[in-house]
Amino acid sequence: MKTFIKNIGQLATLASSKKGARKKEDMSNLAIIENGAILMKNGLIEAIGTTQELQSQYMNELKDALIFNANGKLVTPGLVDPHTHIAYGGSREQEFDLRLRGASYMDIMNAGGGIHATMRMTREATEDELVAQTAKRLDGFAKHGVTTVEGKSGYGMDLETELKQLRVMKRLQQSHALDIVPTFMGAHAVPKEYKGREDEFVDIIIRDMLPKVAQEKLAEFNDVFCEKDVYTPQQAERILEAGKKLGLVPKIHADEIVSYGGAELAAKVGAISAEHLLKVSDEGIRQMAEKNVIACLLPATALFLREEAAPGRKLIDEGVAVAISTDCNPGSSPTVSMPLVMNLACISMRLTPAEALTAATYNAAYAINRQEFIGSLEVGKKADVVLWDVASYEELQYLFGVNHVKSVWKSGKKIV
Amino acid sequence: MKTFIKNIGQLATLASSKKGARKKEDMSNLAIIENGAILMKNGLIEAIGTTQELQSQYMNELKDALIFNANGKLVTPGLVDPHTHIAYGGSREQEFDLRLRGASYMDIMNAGGGIHATMRMTREATEDELVAQTAKRLDGFAKHGVTTVEGKSGYGMDLETELKQLRVMKRLQQSHALDIVPTFMGAHAVPKEYKGREDEFVDIIIRDMLPKVAQEKLAEFNDVFCEKDVYTPQQAERILEAGKKLGLVPKIHADEIVSYGGAELAAKVGAISAEHLLKVSDEGIRQMAEKNVIACLLPATALFLREEAAPGRKLIDEGVAVAISTDCNPGSSPTVSMPLVMNLACISMRLTPAEALTAATYNAAYAINRQEFIGSLEVGKKADVVLWDVASYEELQYLFGVNHVKSVWKSGKKIV
Ligand SMILES: [Zn+2]
Ligand SMILES: [Zn+2]
Repeated sequence: MKTFIKNIGQLATLASSKKGARKKEDMSNLAIIENGAILMKNGLIEAIGTTQELQSQYMNELKDALIFNANGKLVTPGLVDPHTHIAYGGSREQEFDLRLRGASYMDIMNAGGGIHATMRMTREATEDELVAQTAKRLDGFAKHGVTTVEGKSGYGMDLETELKQLRVMKRLQQSHALDIVPTFMGAHAVPKEYKGREDEFVDIIIRDMLPKVAQEKLAEFNDVFCEKDVYTPQQAERILEAGKKLGLVPKIHADEIVSYGGAELAAKVGAISAEHLLKVSDEGIRQMAEKNVIACLLPATALFLREEAAPGRKLIDEGVAVAISTDCNPGSSPTVSMPLVMNLACISMRLTPAEALTAATYNAAYAINRQEFIGSLEVGKKADVVLWDVASYEELQYLFGVNHVKSVWKSGKKIV
Repeated sequence: MKTFIKNIGQLATLASSKKGARKKEDMSNLAIIENGAILMKNGLIEAIGTTQELQSQYMNELKDALIFNANGKLVTPGLVDPHTHIAYGGSREQEFDLRLRGASYMDIMNAGGGIHATMRMTREATEDELVAQTAKRLDGFAKHGVTTVEGKSGYGMDLETELKQLRVMKRLQQSHALDIVPTFMGAHAVPKEYKGREDEFVDIIIRDMLPKVAQEKLAEFNDVFCEKDVYTPQQAERILEAGKKLGLVPKIHADEIVSYGGAELAAKVGAISAEHLLKVSDEGIRQMAEKNVIACLLPATALFLREEAAPGRKLIDEGVAVAISTDCNPGSSPTVSMPLVMNLACISMRLTPAEALTAATYNAAYAINRQEFIGSLEVGKKADVVLWDVASYEELQYLFGVNHVKSVWKSGKKIV
């Protein structure tokens, strides 16, 4: 099974010989090949170069390859979404209407809405129902050029439902074309019944949940919502350190609503990434840069909640590697559009078009520890490829609010 | 040529017996038919009702109709975009990159960017080239569920180029599936050579341009950029009154950057709509409500320019009829996505999902004086219809940043 894409006007390979997620000016280096071509074979990239080079070097190989003409358009690596809450039950569009009519967060909670509504619907859904709902969302991601999606548990907040969410993702990793990377997030909120007794729930996570998750190999990462009135840095640290002993790599929802030491904690525990960071402190930025914690920024969430977006420009300028993500979830970011997230990274956070693309591919792959396989187009990496209906990566970001995806290949197979 | 769409889960007809653009609670009345159906014939809506009603009443008619099954999804009127600058030459994505790298407006102007770059590219383009470029943009609108687009001249600022832009739109009205409604906007900016001598340019518009535009019947509306350091309310009034004598209906780009009396002028001259309104005064709002001036709000522009969006919620609450639009243009809103504009109307301006849909259909049709033909799905109106891949209008706004269009019929013909 071979596929050849030729006449690529701008082939943004993002190839690099350096190690590590990209910082500062390296985020602008897209390693573009003009009039490029890609040969995919057995799900991997077999060769990449100019159309002329590949056509002459692989003359025999090309005889029985499927051939696509990119007609001078842009090709990039498949987008990577390194932060979602995709495996949830139900929908909350009624609550959106209520909120716009002026209902407060408490009004909505009292009307049976909010995160507890999603918890209830996720608990009530069968594993098969969750697989079906989540698969539909993954189809939406694929249409928007995304080929790998991280997904978190955290709408169960009891052992059974947390495991159910993680098993749903494991099943989808088998059955769906996209790759799904699972994260355990038992500490996504405080269950009502543990309000004021958060430490007891932390004990349950550490004693009952984490070992079970690790034993069944249901997650690679361990995430915590470290925020005022949710989990303190001390509680978060206990959970993350317990996870580390079981081989789970830390991530932290940090400094979203107030500056709370989340970025500093991420540096301290050696988190692979810290998320949100709308209110990150200067000291937190400095420590993240020093300890190579990737900033995973979520500008669609900031838009939806009418918040000032995270200081993306400043984070890059201060030497932090930046990734971006949809944060797809029913409460604060009900979208599957990574193209919009790239646009917003430019518009709201002042990333340049090149930096936004790096943040959605190369650095996003690093944020979920998949850099060996995805995030750039290089020989031997997965043939996760997007053909866009624009001539350049600048146009991709400039002509905003439009899904410019034309075709998507996942592991060499055309899925869109 | 007959087409029948059946099994429409939510058929938002927006039918109404009242006259006038909708205000206050009338903006929430979508006149929804559940399990609806539409029969289109000769480009018009022949019948509309429940699937059961139409299947029994039009049994014979349906025998030779094309039949589409909506499978329980949402159907709405074709979206109407009442404010664009679509007929321009060239593209300015390089400038977007420069701006994000910190270049000032003056830096960009000095590098040959800004509105003068578009003026130059529009002047240099042949009529055929502009027709081709604009047709491509209209195709983009169609894919996003838009079936009628208003378009303004204003990148010529000399008689020849202004007429060229208007002729381009006239040709597209003949050749393109979408309907295009033309507006003359000679006073879109101040040409460099008239800086400090704006009154002289106003004289030229009144003496040379307006009569020619009217004589050739190239426009229905006459628009002016009334703004500090551009055209004063007095200059704008002269242009708009001169146009009125020639049968051109006034529109005003008003109060975008500072509060400048634009809304008050719109009320005074009897403008059909006032545009932007980010900085509209309370007195301006009161007068617009009293004189039935439609507020045409452009939240994608506010997003792209990182401005606080117009006070949409307040305008509705104070009794102003609100329409929304992309403002599609190369400088401040390079997008064709009315679905995103509806989402932003909710997120950034606090319109409810129902109000946003009314603003993009019924009220938008009023803003370009097409209410007899489009904006709602009623017997005898144009069969401009969108089938969406969501179950409800709430979902359409809630699952944001995604183009949910499944199919589009323009004058009864399936174009997407
Ligand atoms: Zn999250
Ligand atoms: Zn405008």
